Amino acid sequence: MKPKALGPIPAGFETKDGELAIGGLSTTQLVEKAGSTPLFVYSSALLEQRVQQLRDALPDRLGLNYAIKANPYEPVLKLMSGLVDGFDIASGGELDMAVAAGLDPARISFAGPGKRDDELEAAIVAGVTLNLESEGEARRALAIGERTGHTPKLAIRVNPDFELRGSGMKMGGGAKPFGIDQERVPALAREIIAAGAEWRGLHIFTGSQALEAEAIIEAQSNVLDLAAQLTREIGHPLPKLNMGGGFGIQYFSNDKRLDLKAVGDALKAKIADLPDELRDTELCIELGRYLAGEAGVYLTRIVDRKVSHGETFLITDGGLHHQLAASGNFGTVVRRNYPVAIANHFGAEATEIVNVVGCLCTPLDRLSDRAELPRADVDDIVAVFCAGAYGATASPSAFLGQGPAWEMLV
Amino acid sequence: MKPKALGPIPAGFETKDGELAIGGLSTTQLVEKAGSTPLFVYSSALLEQRVQQLRDALPDRLGLNYAIKANPYEPVLKLMSGLVDGFDIASGGELDMAVAAGLDPARISFAGPGKRDDELEAAIVAGVTLNLESEGEARRALAIGERTGHTPKLAIRVNPDFELRGSGMKMGGGAKPFGIDQERVPALAREIIAAGAEWRGLHIFTGSQALEAEAIIEAQSNVLDLAAQLTREIGHPLPKLNMGGGFGIQYFSNDKRLDLKAVGDALKAKIADLPDELRDTELCIELGRYLAGEAGVYLTRIVDRKVSHGETFLITDGGLHHQLAASGNFGTVVRRNYPVAIANHFGAEATEIVNVVGCLCTPLDRLSDRAELPRADVDDIVAVFCAGAYGATASPSAFLGQGPAWEMLV
Repeated sequence: MKPKALGPIPAGFETKDGELAIGGLSTTQLVEKAGSTPLFVYSSALLEQRVQQLRDALPDRLGLNYAIKANPYEPVLKLMSGLVDGFDIASGGELDMAVAAGLDPARISFAGPGKRDDELEAAIVAGVTLNLESEGEARRALAIGERTGHTPKLAIRVNPDFELRGSGMKMGGGAKPFGIDQERVPALAREIIAAGAEWRGLHIFTGSQALEAEAIIEAQSNVLDLAAQLTREIGHPLPKLNMGGGFGIQYFSNDKRLDLKAVGDALKAKIADLPDELRDTELCIELGRYLAGEAGVYLTRIVDRKVSHGETFLITDGGLHHQLAASGNFGTVVRRNYPVAIANHFGAEATEIVNVVGCLCTPLDRLSDRAELPRADVDDIVAVFCAGAYGATASPSAFLGQGPAWEMLV
Repeated sequence: MKPKALGPIPAGFETKDGELAIGGLSTTQLVEKAGSTPLFVYSSALLEQRVQQLRDALPDRLGLNYAIKANPYEPVLKLMSGLVDGFDIASGGELDMAVAAGLDPARISFAGPGKRDDELEAAIVAGVTLNLESEGEARRALAIGERTGHTPKLAIRVNPDFELRGSGMKMGGGAKPFGIDQERVPALAREIIAAGAEWRGLHIFTGSQALEAEAIIEAQSNVLDLAAQLTREIGHPLPKLNMGGGFGIQYFSNDKRLDLKAVGDALKAKIADLPDELRDTELCIELGRYLAGEAGVYLTRIVDRKVSHGETFLITDGGLHHQLAASGNFGTVVRRNYPVAIANHFGAEATEIVNVVGCLCTPLDRLSDRAELPRADVDDIVAVFCAGAYGATASPSAFLGQGPAWEMLV
């Protein structure tokens, strides 16, 4: 049987007593501390390190927002609160989480194509900036502002005519449910300014999970040019521009590492020569996956080891109910392997080819296909990397009566 | 823009005051009763009707099991308790749900490739039959039986050499994490009988979501032949045979309707001429999706109606966090449209082509692409059909801070 490549294990993980270690704790210690598997472990050191890498590479003037949808675990939000400049939320539920974590609503903006009235009201009353997704939403927000006596802080999300090339998910270019087609933005901006809203600027999100620096550089340049053009057409100064995100991480063996320095250098050059319209504009980018994705690991215990028709299966107590994307079932056409290791034999020589599956009674529940790994037996621990973003909350945890995994920040 | 076909709306839904009606209640009344959207509505009449169709078509001797993973909503379990003969669970969590719903553990069997020791113990102590998935699991079950003083009720799940042709998910044929390769079954059966376990027979599951009667007939015939052969090799009478399921429902426009009568007639003929080994064997099939899938509807309110680059988007307060499979992101390669309607203009003439999307800030969140529907506006209600199985629990309800939908049995 030919092995199938695994994704690259992200940098920064340690070994202790021959085991994967995070925050100075070995796998055995992490599982003991949690009391059970399956378990998500997030590394505060890796989260801090990633923010520092971004601060080092990107222009000083650029603010850094965390899109909490990537990982809304409360201790992660509290840690990020001291590290980043702002937060992006995508629902009233995320607003509640942000408030519970003590985040300042003045640092929060709220994008999302289907905001209900109760969500708009909670955000307006709290002083959160709304990234408007349609003319209808704008009118609802203005009416709620009037009714509640709170001046709404309104920005407009733009559906640009261009997209982020090579991105995993395209959020711009062509007909989209997100934002307002760019040619209709000036009229709406003038309308909400005239209505007395606090004008908060533009949000232009072009895509996500891009690994080509050139594509991100091109999209960021287009975003800045479009923002300047729209500002001219609106005829009011632009207080803030959220340039979106799109920085990708390496999940699969053929993924290249994003050249952050190249992105930062190009942005520095562009910002040094900004059009007049953006001279006083507050600029920020919004990252979720790139900030949190590589800082998390999913640990799951092997419950059974069996052979069927000559293939070996390691069956774990976790699965797609916590790691839907790693199973290849979330927006993926061809299943590829995430980085996976035997956590308590970390760095040991690979000696066999095995399939790692979850405990669910469905053939969809695969954590790796034909992986080359060290020998592992019942009670050994499998680590699935790149689990820090879109893991716990982006998976059907109630499926087959399983329930959520443990989570821990160390 | 060319429309994209919608799946066929299942039979049995009524119209009241121009609205989709379930259990005599119009869409407006259903939403009022629940108090909010999004909402799953399950029809007790359609569940009862489906069981009756199966009883009419299938041999009297064949027991009917409900695989509760398809829909474990407690009122559904309580209703099914009076309709079917047995229940299949897939985890300790589902055992808890079954017990909470008052189901008799003696009618329950437990299959699943990654049963933990605590799950095995809870099942053995409760008197649930275990469908063993490996030799290792068999030994763990025997040890737990010994330690707790409860005789384990053990069946063996067989990984057959054949599969269910044309099934949506293949559960047999080749290397699989499920069950024990057929040639190793006799030795294990003799071992557990010799160890003093209560021998409960075989479970042979070959696939799911098959629409071709011929394929199901062939698989069922193969299952009966294999069971007879294994019984000869085991040398003990076979108390019970769970023949699996695999009956599919129509999700998409090109799906054909399963010819239940053809399946039943073939099975009657086969059972009339059973090999001696199976003469006294209790036979059952296990269905989840086929029992519950068409009896449920997902209702979600339109929050926004917008146009982008000439395409109309209806943005709802629901989405893939409740309807992952309908969004095309759960084990699907090419996205196709489930049956969808404007529930409060049910049966009205289609007058426009629209995209129905969810409220999540991701392009994955689509409920239908280019659907031909009657004109709909904000506050109208979209119905997604075939939502009775693998909807609420097979979707990432915590995604983007959303939370679960309401559920209701009427």
